Amino acid sequence: MSNWQEVDTYVKHWIKEAGDRIRKSFKSQLNIQTKSNRNDLVTNVDQETEQYFIERIRNTFPDHYILGEEGFGDDLKDTEGTIWIIDPIDGTMNFVHQQRNFAISIGIYHDGEGMLGYIYDVVHDELYHARKGHGAFMDDMQLKPLEEVDIRDSIIGVNALWVTENNRIDREVLGPLVRDVRGTRSYGSAALEMAYVASGRIDGYMTMRLAPWDFAAGKILIEEVGGVVTSLDGKELNILQKSSVFSCKPGLHENIQASYLKGISLNS
Amino acid sequence: MSNWQEVDTYVKHWIKEAGDRIRKSFKSQLNIQTKSNRNDLVTNVDQETEQYFIERIRNTFPDHYILGEEGFGDDLKDTEGTIWIIDPIDGTMNFVHQQRNFAISIGIYHDGEGMLGYIYDVVHDELYHARKGHGAFMDDMQLKPLEEVDIRDSIIGVNALWVTENNRIDREVLGPLVRDVRGTRSYGSAALEMAYVASGRIDGYMTMRLAPWDFAAGKILIEEVGGVVTSLDGKELNILQKSSVFSCKPGLHENIQASYLKGISLNS
Repeated sequence: MSNWQEVDTYVKHWIKEAGDRIRKSFKSQLNIQTKSNRNDLVTNVDQETEQYFIERIRNTFPDHYILGEEGFGDDLKDTEGTIWIIDPIDGTMNFVHQQRNFAISIGIYHDGEGMLGYIYDVVHDELYHARKGHGAFMDDMQLKPLEEVDIRDSIIGVNALWVTENNRIDREVLGPLVRDVRGTRSYGSAALEMAYVASGRIDGYMTMRLAPWDFAAGKILIEEVGGVVTSLDGKELNILQKSSVFSCKPGLHENIQASYLKGISLNS
Repeated sequence: MSNWQEVDTYVKHWIKEAGDRIRKSFKSQLNIQTKSNRNDLVTNVDQETEQYFIERIRNTFPDHYILGEEGFGDDLKDTEGTIWIIDPIDGTMNFVHQQRNFAISIGIYHDGEGMLGYIYDVVHDELYHARKGHGAFMDDMQLKPLEEVDIRDSIIGVNALWVTENNRIDREVLGPLVRDVRGTRSYGSAALEMAYVASGRIDGYMTMRLAPWDFAAGKILIEEVGGVVTSLDGKELNILQKSSVFSCKPGLHENIQASYLKGISLNS
């Protein structure tokens, strides 16, 4: 079993350094790049950032496993041991088009249990972090336990795509919810949207298809402040599998499930 | 006719000072009131900020007119003369829930023509500004002329509400567009979303119902970099009336109109 305090110190140092490198990769001009440049840029920075982490993890914690979006990690069959789940740039489209609204996301699980979660908003230099049982923070500011909120007073992160005809979910399921809530938002980065749920900026976030590296850190952060993270049909998330994600303040999660999501079926 | 250079200097100074006051207000408790529309949260900061501007405009430019969201300005019958159109806090819901993703928006028109536009992202301390014929900027960085982009490569700001059943537009109109584009976003501040169009962070933004203070500044910014701003049915915006808004990169505006918006009817 690791010394989580020690791991935490390393991760924070590495994330900040990786963020510095990403910020330096930006030119002084705004986001306008040619399309071919864009693809090169994103591939390079994505892969370099993942490799940056993998190299350091392998050297410092040689018995830990790694699951990474860019595929330089391990091929994992089960959740035994300590697993780092890494998205070097969550919100790649934002990274390319906006040079903002993207994040480095790292969740560290031990025997399937979330121990440490980090979502780093690189451009704003804001690090959301949590250690199981020790609270969640944005930088040095402790995040408060999430409080219940009425559906009609809530702001939900949900993309417009899921209330049009699409091949994942019947548009009639979420349409009524979108109309009933106070408002909806869509930021284009699952990790950031989950960090926003953890910090109370939005009251819930739902989407149809995420990979483990998209939700691994957010799940730990949200649960540490009393929020609930499941699949859209209310099942526990498997950290090695793709899934829909439904994360909410306590109470709101149950109320939305009861009023809008009963017996839904999703296409995988 | 005013000396626009002089006006510009005053506005920038006032906006920055007003922004400082807003940032400082985050430490004291907010006094939230509710307008008739339950989504339209108004705070004391909204009203104080509008009065801050009105006082200074009246003293410095006594022959200018003012149209403001909080209603402390003039009752205008036509667009003659110089009119300041002010939203002290665009994105009030974000202001209240997030303490970010809101903006001060000021558009200055002369005889109906947009002369100066300002959108100030208070928390990020980023000022988008334009002077007709003199270019648009984010802080000191000049914004480039907007380039054409394919519908399938574009990111559009559009709220999920407009593709559910709602009382403004048939959900079948924008549904196909939402599916065809690369992605959609929704940030909850029309002014910021229009600043994002002007700076190329998103390729277009559309919504069903804005007041003049929501779009007055954004229209000037976007047009200064070659973008197109109309109502959703392609008509010129009247700066004294509420309207739907459809703002896009050049080319993209025409293509979306031709492919998705032909002959649409909107409920007012």
